[in-house]
Amino acid sequence: MKVPGALVEFLRKGDRFFIATHIDPEADAIGSSVALTLGLRKMGKETLVFNRDLVPRICRFLPGSDIITDRAPDRIENLVLMDCNSPKRAGLDGNDLGFAAVIDHHQTETDFGNIRWIVPNAPATGLMAFYLIRELGVAIDSDMATNLYAAIGIDTGIFRYPNTNAASLDVAAELVRLGADPAEIAERLFNNFTKNRFILYRRALEGMEILDELAITIIPRVLFGETGTSAEDTENFVNVALIMDEIKISALLRELENGSWKVSLRSKGNIDISSVASLFGGGGHRNAAGCSIKADIESVKKMLLKELLPKLQ
Amino acid sequence: MKVPGALVEFLRKGDRFFIATHIDPEADAIGSSVALTLGLRKMGKETLVFNRDLVPRICRFLPGSDIITDRAPDRIENLVLMDCNSPKRAGLDGNDLGFAAVIDHHQTETDFGNIRWIVPNAPATGLMAFYLIRELGVAIDSDMATNLYAAIGIDTGIFRYPNTNAASLDVAAELVRLGADPAEIAERLFNNFTKNRFILYRRALEGMEILDELAITIIPRVLFGETGTSAEDTENFVNVALIMDEIKISALLRELENGSWKVSLRSKGNIDISSVASLFGGGGHRNAAGCSIKADIESVKKMLLKELLPKLQ
Repeated sequence: MKVPGALVEFLRKGDRFFIATHIDPEADAIGSSVALTLGLRKMGKETLVFNRDLVPRICRFLPGSDIITDRAPDRIENLVLMDCNSPKRAGLDGNDLGFAAVIDHHQTETDFGNIRWIVPNAPATGLMAFYLIRELGVAIDSDMATNLYAAIGIDTGIFRYPNTNAASLDVAAELVRLGADPAEIAERLFNNFTKNRFILYRRALEGMEILDELAITIIPRVLFGETGTSAEDTENFVNVALIMDEIKISALLRELENGSWKVSLRSKGNIDISSVASLFGGGGHRNAAGCSIKADIESVKKMLLKELLPKLQ
Repeated sequence: MKVPGALVEFLRKGDRFFIATHIDPEADAIGSSVALTLGLRKMGKETLVFNRDLVPRICRFLPGSDIITDRAPDRIENLVLMDCNSPKRAGLDGNDLGFAAVIDHHQTETDFGNIRWIVPNAPATGLMAFYLIRELGVAIDSDMATNLYAAIGIDTGIFRYPNTNAASLDVAAELVRLGADPAEIAERLFNNFTKNRFILYRRALEGMEILDELAITIIPRVLFGETGTSAEDTENFVNVALIMDEIKISALLRELENGSWKVSLRSKGNIDISSVASLFGGGGHRNAAGCSIKADIESVKKMLLKELLPKLQ
């Protein structure tokens, strides 16, 4: 992966940088921006690292993540936007922005940025940050290595998702040599349920309907109150049913405050469920899509099954 | 990792080999022995690959695994024992064994073998097989790469267990370049529940008792009949409770045919539960141990709690 010369020059020349990442951040956003910050500070630069939502509980083990602030000045010079590519995604659309660089692996939504380094097929922004820091000539220490390993780890599911490539494994090996502890990081990233969330998980499984090749999990709002949890705690629950060989489609139906249902759909292989999500005004990709439907739960199920079952023939 | 010259010479010189691995095999046993077999066949050697229990369902995706046989001649020449280090572990203790090489990453129980390559700190025999095949000068093709990646993947939990090191990640990167598909292999190794096993899992979770820092899961025999499963289907269930931050010890109690209970214990960090298992005539390591207790379930729980709760102070 070739790091743009203009980006390296921009970071070498400047004295102060404002690093920002997307709202509702995960370990790729936090890890890649903290690692770059630590690198720039080693070069003698002043930096501020901003996240509108600060650091989520499960990322607080990342060394240096406590430097993240949720305060931004009105006028921002030398912005480095990481793991997102528009000021809006970072909660900075109201600010007066000067020169800006963008480092991201997501498809772009806008043409924002004076320097744009966007690699949609990179598994993680953390991988890009690794190459960038190395290109800057900074020795990666164990704190930086831990941040970068976690960034790559979360976005590849620790090398289980289809975006895993040889480069991500090469870099992971190098980061372990530099001090990242792979088992500790895996434990922090994935074995991090609160007891309440686990009880919600168990309740969700209890209510899962397992049909021939399709599983439906229904999460009524009342469950959050009963278990002391909130909607975020259902993250990834839709993937659980796919652990079964026989199950080809998983649907998670979560009740929203306004009485409608948020529908998350996952499928295996060639089964395209994005068209089903589109039918109900949603969208997504072939194997992961979503929509919202306003109706009582029995009607929602009926509507969905009518569209999903033919996909399994 | 240095491959012993005597082993390389032995494999270069011979024309026929009998490769065997341990009973009740998993993907490290199957993958490393199949990969070596494919390598030796590329060198023009004749090979037989033996496993007393043949290939388990979840390993059948491994290319070439269908060559494994469960028939062994009485007299075996040029034995290569992989992922175990005694004929007994391979179900060959009744056979008449000639010259033998041993390739393993487990602690040795005996001094069996004319050539012994035993590396207890290697994360997987598959890693050793990779270095060996390369040393033999054989080009690793995508079938061999898939077997080796799966072998390393299962024994490191796809780079999540504490045995994960930089070398295993380096080799994984190389195997991906050689044709292994990391996401496909992860899917096959870990998303492979039958529907019945999933229902058993859900029933096990329903019955899990979550105390302050300790979780107890009880699996009475009747559950297997009700869900169409067997004892093997409980593999790894004991680890599930540890996904909770607050839980430091997990105990799984499984009823045996003779009315006693098989106890599996897991702990986090410095909590040593092997001493508890020893008390009841079992054994294990600091964080993973087991024993059997013959008593009614309430007494078993009481006896265990008496020993386990002080570990949490």
